[in-house]
Amino acid sequence: MIKNVFFNKYVHLYKLFEFQRNFSAIANVLEKSNVGDSTEIKGWVRNLRVQKELVFADVSDGTCAKKLQTVIPKHLKTDALTYGSSVHITGTLSKSPKGQIELVAESVRVLGSCVVLDGYPFNPRTTHPPEYIRQYLHLRSRTNYISAILRVRHAVTKHIHDFFASRNYININTPILTSNDCEGAGEVFKVQPDNDETVKAMMQEGRDRDSVYFGSKTFLTVSGQLHLEAICRGMGNVYTLGPTFRAENSRSRLHLSEFYMLEAELAFCESLDQLKFSIEDLMKYVFAKTRDTNEADLFLIDKDKAKTPSWIDKEFVTMSYNEAKEILKKKNIADTEEGINKEQELALVDHCNGIPVFVVRWPKDMKSFYMKECEDDSSKVDALDLLGPVTGEIVGGSLREDNYEKLKLKLPSEKLNWYLELRKFGNIPTGGFGLGLERLLQVMCGVPNIKDTLPFPRWPHNCDM
Amino acid sequence: MIKNVFFNKYVHLYKLFEFQRNFSAIANVLEKSNVGDSTEIKGWVRNLRVQKELVFADVSDGTCAKKLQTVIPKHLKTDALTYGSSVHITGTLSKSPKGQIELVAESVRVLGSCVVLDGYPFNPRTTHPPEYIRQYLHLRSRTNYISAILRVRHAVTKHIHDFFASRNYININTPILTSNDCEGAGEVFKVQPDNDETVKAMMQEGRDRDSVYFGSKTFLTVSGQLHLEAICRGMGNVYTLGPTFRAENSRSRLHLSEFYMLEAELAFCESLDQLKFSIEDLMKYVFAKTRDTNEADLFLIDKDKAKTPSWIDKEFVTMSYNEAKEILKKKNIADTEEGINKEQELALVDHCNGIPVFVVRWPKDMKSFYMKECEDDSSKVDALDLLGPVTGEIVGGSLREDNYEKLKLKLPSEKLNWYLELRKFGNIPTGGFGLGLERLLQVMCGVPNIKDTLPFPRWPHNCDM
Repeated sequence: MIKNVFFNKYVHLYKLFEFQRNFSAIANVLEKSNVGDSTEIKGWVRNLRVQKELVFADVSDGTCAKKLQTVIPKHLKTDALTYGSSVHITGTLSKSPKGQIELVAESVRVLGSCVVLDGYPFNPRTTHPPEYIRQYLHLRSRTNYISAILRVRHAVTKHIHDFFASRNYININTPILTSNDCEGAGEVFKVQPDNDETVKAMMQEGRDRDSVYFGSKTFLTVSGQLHLEAICRGMGNVYTLGPTFRAENSRSRLHLSEFYMLEAELAFCESLDQLKFSIEDLMKYVFAKTRDTNEADLFLIDKDKAKTPSWIDKEFVTMSYNEAKEILKKKNIADTEEGINKEQELALVDHCNGIPVFVVRWPKDMKSFYMKECEDDSSKVDALDLLGPVTGEIVGGSLREDNYEKLKLKLPSEKLNWYLELRKFGNIPTGGFGLGLERLLQVMCGVPNIKDTLPFPRWPHNCDM
Repeated sequence: MIKNVFFNKYVHLYKLFEFQRNFSAIANVLEKSNVGDSTEIKGWVRNLRVQKELVFADVSDGTCAKKLQTVIPKHLKTDALTYGSSVHITGTLSKSPKGQIELVAESVRVLGSCVVLDGYPFNPRTTHPPEYIRQYLHLRSRTNYISAILRVRHAVTKHIHDFFASRNYININTPILTSNDCEGAGEVFKVQPDNDETVKAMMQEGRDRDSVYFGSKTFLTVSGQLHLEAICRGMGNVYTLGPTFRAENSRSRLHLSEFYMLEAELAFCESLDQLKFSIEDLMKYVFAKTRDTNEADLFLIDKDKAKTPSWIDKEFVTMSYNEAKEILKKKNIADTEEGINKEQELALVDHCNGIPVFVVRWPKDMKSFYMKECEDDSSKVDALDLLGPVTGEIVGGSLREDNYEKLKLKLPSEKLNWYLELRKFGNIPTGGFGLGLERLLQVMCGVPNIKDTLPFPRWPHNCDM
């Protein structure tokens, strides 16, 4: 057990800091305060109703989905106190006729005014469509919709870190810059210094602008998996959660040029069942925790989607690729093509009553070089896709080829000799998976466009700010 | 308070998963198990001593700094059981003559052999220098030194997230790709698609290769501060912990091309004191927590540095830039130059008996455009540097200019009009700071070279893997 030896020395200081903060987070006021408490808050006016004697201002400070209703005597209302202004309000907590906590103001200070007619893009009592809001990236965290999604994103991230910490995984920051160009399916961005002086000063014979800085052409990562595998072979279970990049010319509601991937590598993983268990464990943990911590946010984003998923206490389904193709054929939605497309993925989940489905045992030539051949069928690999409602594929994973000779034959480039060498010294069986954070958020919250699941989306022709 | 409604539904499943894992993490064995327990472990042999009747193998699985001594009867020793091999050992826990927990093996399975003479760069009972180890990035997590540092890095990251979560901050993923080119002091990397076909397909009139994909020249971020400020003005306290980049031609022991920055922006921050409190709070929390959770790792990295810092229960010192210059003059280590160099930083910390020092009230022309002028002296800004032992400056921060007209005059580029506009609508006073994660790790662990504080360091001429 952890002994809080040093921590205890410091705790008395924290109490001091808390004491010195002269206002309360609205989340704390709504959860922990009592009627009659003297309270100070700071936040933004999201709604303002002016009546004869009183002004009602709903104030939000970003710490939770709920707003605190403040009741302001008319004589404290100044011209600057409008929708969108930032305020510092002191008063006493009371109960509204409907039984909700409200703050009866004794003093109101406007910190920053907000003249809507001077170009503020949002209007009171209006639900602007996400496409409109997206034009104002620098201001859109002031809307209910985006701030709720960003709080859920924060919570999901926290739950993911807590999940892995409690299961003895080490968080590894795999690199963004890499000289590996051959691991990913997508197209890559290349990176070089912008400054011509730097390029000139570093130029050597045989180099060009692409390789002058690092000595070889350098790209933005498309996956941290191969790097994770290296660390996994010294430190056991590892994971990474960070940005990855695709230079594709795709503007769909499911694609971004910069997005976050969660990737985990399981040490001593000898069967696909172990991998499946871990993925199911993670999915249920994160969905259950988030619904507990952020129910009001989920409700605010899409009240129809803010239900417990039906699968939270059910075992996920498993079927082989061949079985999946058979089911699709019977349903008349199989085509002649290889693989399983988006429509077919959703049909399979539907076939299983909305419960997520692991599709396993994929044809070898449809999957990556590092995946392990099935022991009983060398035309298949021990790969899995997890299909879920709304977006279809949500997780991809596999056991890794751990046979040195077999891997050597499949290695796509000499640049990956380091990866091959991992199998030469004290090798262990491993398996791993990758999950797109933004897709997960789309499924969890019911967000139609992936560009609304992160604060500053980047896609073709769009890298503002 | 959070209700674990959905979480409880799922917990019974987790118990099932635990049951199905057929081996224990060595960290758990050493902390939670009892003599007489039947135990299975998987890991790597870090030391092997062959005696007449018995073989002693120290096994590590990466979950903690300590190794588990296993006692193996001679008849279970095969040729493959060597230093560096990976093993699966089943047995019963016992107590060694010295009183330590050890595992008496009943079966030993070698998972992967390790022939040192076949090119394995590490040798048993040898402490290789970090410069040597660094040549083998893909294998170096198998060394005590690097695995201990990576565990501390993981712990520090976790403590940072826990710290901010407990203080109502939202974790915001600021973008890696940005079209802002004018905010940072350092040089930048530019980004473009690698694929010529993509470039050709997306080319439009007036565009060049640099701007074809995003519509404007795009860079790797040097700081998330300006983006954080945008979100802070809708959601309150925010922070980010992620990769940032510098295209400098510097190969010092303190510089990397890719490194992690923690940046926080405090909503409604009206004085430098509030900012100072938050930074001191963070530093003490993270140092104290890490010393509790990872004492053995810190001891393994540098046993002289693994002490509690002397300042953990003392108030940090504050002095103005002018006072600092006076002190340096008296000590005869002031030069004629402006600013405070590394040697001077360390002299100031020494002057304060090793307690970290906030240097505040800096000359305006030495600091960035967004810093707020001191109310009583428009030639100074409300900026701070926190100086600590070992590396000198460890945190930089400031109040932000919140006066629209003043900021407009100082804005370095029209591209930042969005940043100016943040001050126009419901503006609030904010302040923030940035902290280099790798520098923090250097101070905390006593790691001389910054390249050993992260798994895959990138610096000029070095981007292997």
